[in-house]
Amino acid sequence: MAAGEIRILPLAGIPEVRPGDDLGALLGDAIAHAGGLEPGDVVVVTQKVVSKAEGRVARVPPGGPVAAILAEAARVRRRRGDFVIAETRHGFVCASAGVDRSNTPGDDWVVLLPEDPDASARRLRHALAARFGCAPAVIVTDSFGRAWRQGTTDVAIGVAGMLPLLDLRGRPDGRGRPLEATLIAVADELAGAAELVTGKASGVPAALVRGYRVPAGEGSARELAMPPERDLFP
Amino acid sequence: MAAGEIRILPLAGIPEVRPGDDLGALLGDAIAHAGGLEPGDVVVVTQKVVSKAEGRVARVPPGGPVAAILAEAARVRRRRGDFVIAETRHGFVCASAGVDRSNTPGDDWVVLLPEDPDASARRLRHALAARFGCAPAVIVTDSFGRAWRQGTTDVAIGVAGMLPLLDLRGRPDGRGRPLEATLIAVADELAGAAELVTGKASGVPAALVRGYRVPAGEGSARELAMPPERDLFP
Repeated sequence: MAAGEIRILPLAGIPEVRPGDDLGALLGDAIAHAGGLEPGDVVVVTQKVVSKAEGRVARVPPGGPVAAILAEAARVRRRRGDFVIAETRHGFVCASAGVDRSNTPGDDWVVLLPEDPDASARRLRHALAARFGCAPAVIVTDSFGRAWRQGTTDVAIGVAGMLPLLDLRGRPDGRGRPLEATLIAVADELAGAAELVTGKASGVPAALVRGYRVPAGEGSARELAMPPERDLFP
Repeated sequence: MAAGEIRILPLAGIPEVRPGDDLGALLGDAIAHAGGLEPGDVVVVTQKVVSKAEGRVARVPPGGPVAAILAEAARVRRRRGDFVIAETRHGFVCASAGVDRSNTPGDDWVVLLPEDPDASARRLRHALAARFGCAPAVIVTDSFGRAWRQGTTDVAIGVAGMLPLLDLRGRPDGRGRPLEATLIAVADELAGAAELVTGKASGVPAALVRGYRVPAGEGSARELAMPPERDLFP
């Protein structure tokens, strides 16, 4: 690898995941097939396979998919017909409270977000550490829409073995003055970078990011949720 | 490179950029130093050096930085004291209308967004094509905050030689059903991926992304701006 280079490797060959499957073992097989883990690697896993392995799937209720969305929502932020932007119980704001109707186990099923995506990430981290002898940072991702911008990007909804935000407060700019934007959502940038190889139609549910030094610490993706007192768009 | 792998290479060694500098030549030197361009490469350049080369710098007006921000804003969306979220003339919604006070030419200077960031990207694309014999896609990026999420991520404010959105409408999911989230803001994901090697304090203002097949076409980053009729957070 060139100095400072980052590589994003697709983790292919993971079969269709079903409730109760050992996702850590499936991921480990895919990582072994890609050449194994190296110290500092970040494993990025899409929410869909995490939720399926954890049994976070449900039949569409009699009220239809919107009923499933409202059942998952802690608070509805905006609604236009069947399109709902809601805050989840984790504090994330996203379309449909994270309830997904594509790549489900069946036509009348939905996939829900993991109960605790940080805990999901920690479990995968521990499983991979036990197998490979080094503990990767792990990010669980989902595709979120954004206010004011078209299209989704993948963002972090769970992390383990890293801080999700890079805090540059106090660091100088090139001229020795304090930097202005000082909090970088690197877990979201890593999630989006991984989406470039995972993709929705590609059947690749995870990626390995190599060469990026994550902010050290034991953080939570909930740190990425805007605290109410700073939220100008409640 | 492994199958499906993406590499993100920092383009280092670019000196402090000043108004009138030939950024295409400076970028070309950095790319040559990194081993040259390959067909399909994406060159990602941070807005700060584009704006500086184009002379989009200004002295802070007598009214202070907020006056500079209000002068750049097409419309203020929210304001809390000196913190302004505004729509720019390009249609992007961001803090301070893109006016930046770090890494400026001097203490009493601000850096403004390029007049037409797509045109900036096209000029760089043409300069690099003339030098290397293959035309890269080019993305001009800036660091934007987000509603509901802490921290900035880099996003695309100008593109050339690509479409900023990957449109998956009509493509099937793994079970043959239509995908739900069908518009992926890949230019923003590429911008964020590049930020992982450019960084704010690193002095690396550009990166090369290799191995990603961009959506083909001649698009505009303005397609990433949410059209008013779909904007639930005006």
